[in-house]
Amino acid sequence: MEVKFDQKKGLWAEGEDADRLRNNSFGEQDGKTLWLTPEEALYIIDLQNGTVNHNGKAMGFEEVLAAYAPKDPRLMIKYNAYRDWRDRGLIIRRADKTTKGQSRSSQVKKYPSSEMSLKKLKAKVVWDSTSAMGVLDDQKLSRELFSDWWLGQIGVYKQERGSVLKLNFFEVMLLSEHFGLRVFDTAKSKETSSKNIMGEIARRREFAKTMYQAYVDWRLNGYIVKTGFKFGTHFRIYFPGASPAKGSDGGKWVHSKHVLHVFPKEEKLLVSEWARAVRVAHGVKKTFILGMPKLTDKDYVDYPADFAAYRRKKKGKDWVRETPKDGPRYLLAAVSEEEHIGGVELASLLKKAEAMNLNLILSITDRETAITYYALNKIKLKDAKFDYYEIEWLRP
Amino acid sequence: MEVKFDQKKGLWAEGEDADRLRNNSFGEQDGKTLWLTPEEALYIIDLQNGTVNHNGKAMGFEEVLAAYAPKDPRLMIKYNAYRDWRDRGLIIRRADKTTKGQSRSSQVKKYPSSEMSLKKLKAKVVWDSTSAMGVLDDQKLSRELFSDWWLGQIGVYKQERGSVLKLNFFEVMLLSEHFGLRVFDTAKSKETSSKNIMGEIARRREFAKTMYQAYVDWRLNGYIVKTGFKFGTHFRIYFPGASPAKGSDGGKWVHSKHVLHVFPKEEKLLVSEWARAVRVAHGVKKTFILGMPKLTDKDYVDYPADFAAYRRKKKGKDWVRETPKDGPRYLLAAVSEEEHIGGVELASLLKKAEAMNLNLILSITDRETAITYYALNKIKLKDAKFDYYEIEWLRP
Repeated sequence: MEVKFDQKKGLWAEGEDADRLRNNSFGEQDGKTLWLTPEEALYIIDLQNGTVNHNGKAMGFEEVLAAYAPKDPRLMIKYNAYRDWRDRGLIIRRADKTTKGQSRSSQVKKYPSSEMSLKKLKAKVVWDSTSAMGVLDDQKLSRELFSDWWLGQIGVYKQERGSVLKLNFFEVMLLSEHFGLRVFDTAKSKETSSKNIMGEIARRREFAKTMYQAYVDWRLNGYIVKTGFKFGTHFRIYFPGASPAKGSDGGKWVHSKHVLHVFPKEEKLLVSEWARAVRVAHGVKKTFILGMPKLTDKDYVDYPADFAAYRRKKKGKDWVRETPKDGPRYLLAAVSEEEHIGGVELASLLKKAEAMNLNLILSITDRETAITYYALNKIKLKDAKFDYYEIEWLRP
Repeated sequence: MEVKFDQKKGLWAEGEDADRLRNNSFGEQDGKTLWLTPEEALYIIDLQNGTVNHNGKAMGFEEVLAAYAPKDPRLMIKYNAYRDWRDRGLIIRRADKTTKGQSRSSQVKKYPSSEMSLKKLKAKVVWDSTSAMGVLDDQKLSRELFSDWWLGQIGVYKQERGSVLKLNFFEVMLLSEHFGLRVFDTAKSKETSSKNIMGEIARRREFAKTMYQAYVDWRLNGYIVKTGFKFGTHFRIYFPGASPAKGSDGGKWVHSKHVLHVFPKEEKLLVSEWARAVRVAHGVKKTFILGMPKLTDKDYVDYPADFAAYRRKKKGKDWVRETPKDGPRYLLAAVSEEEHIGGVELASLLKKAEAMNLNLILSITDRETAITYYALNKIKLKDAKFDYYEIEWLRP
C-alpha cells in the first residue's frame, strides 16, 4: 500500500491502492485520484504496513506529522480517535457542513412526571447558615415529610432511630420557596426568606443556584432527589413514588438507578474530571444524567467536531458495518484527558450534532493514546428549565 | 439523663447524670459540675433520650442549636461528625492547643527507591504542541524506552502492534530535561527546549508544572508513572522494575497498585470532588497517594481542626475502646461535601496534626448527614520535592 505526498498537492493514492482504500471508505475521489487526510495517511503507516512516498523517498510517521501538524491543530489527538475507531473495523470520516445523519428521533428518552402535591406547610425550620443545614421544630410533620417525600434525614441513614429532621440547603430552599415553610436564621436570630438564604449560600458556594435549579426541575416532577456523594455525583435520583421506608416488594430497600451531575455553563472542567464522574456512576451500574442550563443563542460557540462515525447494522442474520451510503450515526469530538471542556462548549457540540441529525460522542484520548467513548442521548422531562442527557459509556 | 442550660453559664450536668456522662468521657469536670459542649448536649437529646432543662422547661434540639449556632460556626457539621464517631461506641472530644497524641512515628511509610539509570539520548522527538504529544524518530531506541522504562506507547495498549513510539507531555519533558532528548517543534519548524515546552503547555493547562514536578519525583526514584485516567486520577504508579512486557511470573500482566493525585496549593477543590477521586481508587483496590507541594512557613493558615478522636486497643483477648488516659490517635476535621478545601488548608491541617503527634482524619458529612472518613498517612520518598500521603478510607 503506497500513499504519495507532495508539499503543494497533499496526500493521495492511485490505481489499485486507491481502489482498495476507496472500498474501505478512505479518502475523497476526484477523477482518478483518491485524496487522503493526514490521519488516514498516518493510520496507513502506523497500522496498515503502508508507506508514504515523497518524490521516491519514504516518509516516516513523524515526518507526515511534522508536515501537517502546523496547519491542522490537535492532529495527534484527532489521529488517536480516528485510529481507534478504524481499529474496531468501523468507518470514520471527517465531518463537514454537509454531514447529515440517519434519523435519530427515537433516541430522545421521555422520562415520566408526577406532580409534587404537598400542601402549604405551617412550620418553621431552624437554619444554621454556616453549616447550610436546618432542623424542623415539628415532629409530626417531620415524619410526614420524611416518609412521603423523603425530604431530610431523621436519625441515621437506614436506621430507625432518633426523631429530629435535618434538612439540607436544597430541601430548605424547595420547601420555603414552593411550599411556604418559614425559616428562622440562627445567625440573625430572626426569620429569613429563601432569597436571602440563596444569596448567602451562593456567595460561599460556587454554582449553588445552578445546582438548586436542577434539583427543583426533578423534585417538581415528583422525583426523589438525594445527595449523590457516595456515587461521586451531585445527586442521585429515584423515580416518582420512592420512599425511605422499605419497599412493598418483600421489604427490600429501594435503590436509585440514576445519578445527576450538573454542569454550569460558566464551568470549565478538565476532561479527566468529567470522565471520572461518569466512570463512578458506571461502576455502580447507575445511569449518568448530565444537566446543563439552556443556553441563549449568543452563548453558543463554534467548537470543532471532528468526525462523522459509522457503526454496524443487521443484514440478514449478520452484523455488517455501515458505510457512507447508510449515513453516519455519530458526531465524534476528539478530546484529550488533559484538555478543558466548558458547559458552553459541550452544549454547542450537542446543538451541532442535533442540527446534523447525529448523536454526539466524546472520544477521550488518555496520555497513553487509549480511547474511551461517551455517547450523549437527550432526555425529555416535563417543564424542565435545563437540558438533560443520559451519558452512556460506549464500546463501539 | 438531664442536662441543664443557662444563657450565661452554658450546658452542664450534675449528680448521677454527671457521673454517667464522665464515665463515658463526656464533658469537662470543674468541681462538682460537668460542663458540656453543644454537640454533646445535642447528641444527648438526639440519640440518648436525654433532655435539656432551661429553668424548668425542656429545650428541643432546634432550640439548643439556635442558642449555640451564632457563636459556634458550622455547628451542625461538627455535630454530625461527633454523632457518627460516638455512635460507633468510640470517644471523641474537642481538640485544643494542649491535645497530644500517642506516638505515631511508625505510621510514616517508607517507599523504596532506585535510580533511573538511563544514559544520554542521541535522538529527536517530533513534538505536536497543540496535541501535547510527540513521536520518536528512532525505532531501536523507541523499543528500548518502551520496554525498559515503559516510556511512551507503541501501537495500541496491551497489543503487540505498530512500531511508532508516541510520547506524552510528561515523558517528553523528562527525557529532554534529564536525559538530553532533542525536541523538534512542528509548529515552529525548529528545535525547542524543555523550558519552552513547559511555558507553552502551562499557559493552556492549569497546574502543568505542579503535575510534572510530582511525575519527576517518582520517575527519578525508578517508579513507572503512567496516566491514571482509567482510575479517575492523575497518575498510576508501578514500583521500580515494572515493564509493559509481560511479567516473569507465568506471563501475567503487571497491575499497578497505587494511584497518584496531585493537589496544587493554589487549587480549591470541592470536598465531594476530592472524595470522588479517593473513592474511584478504592473501588479498583488501589492505594491512593496524594501529592502536595511543600509549603513555606508563610503559606500555612490556621484551619480549624475540630476534634481529637480515640479508637480501640487490644486488652487481653478483647478489643476495648481507648480513653483520654491512652491519648487520642487522630486529629479529626469535620467538613461537609459542599465545602471547598484548598491545598494550603489541607497542608496546614496535616502540619497541625503532626505537631500534636496525631494522624489526620477528614470526616465528610454528606447532605443526608452520613459520614465518610479518610485518614492520611505520611510517605517517605527519597529526595522528593513534594509531600506525599497515603489516603485510606477508614471505617472506625
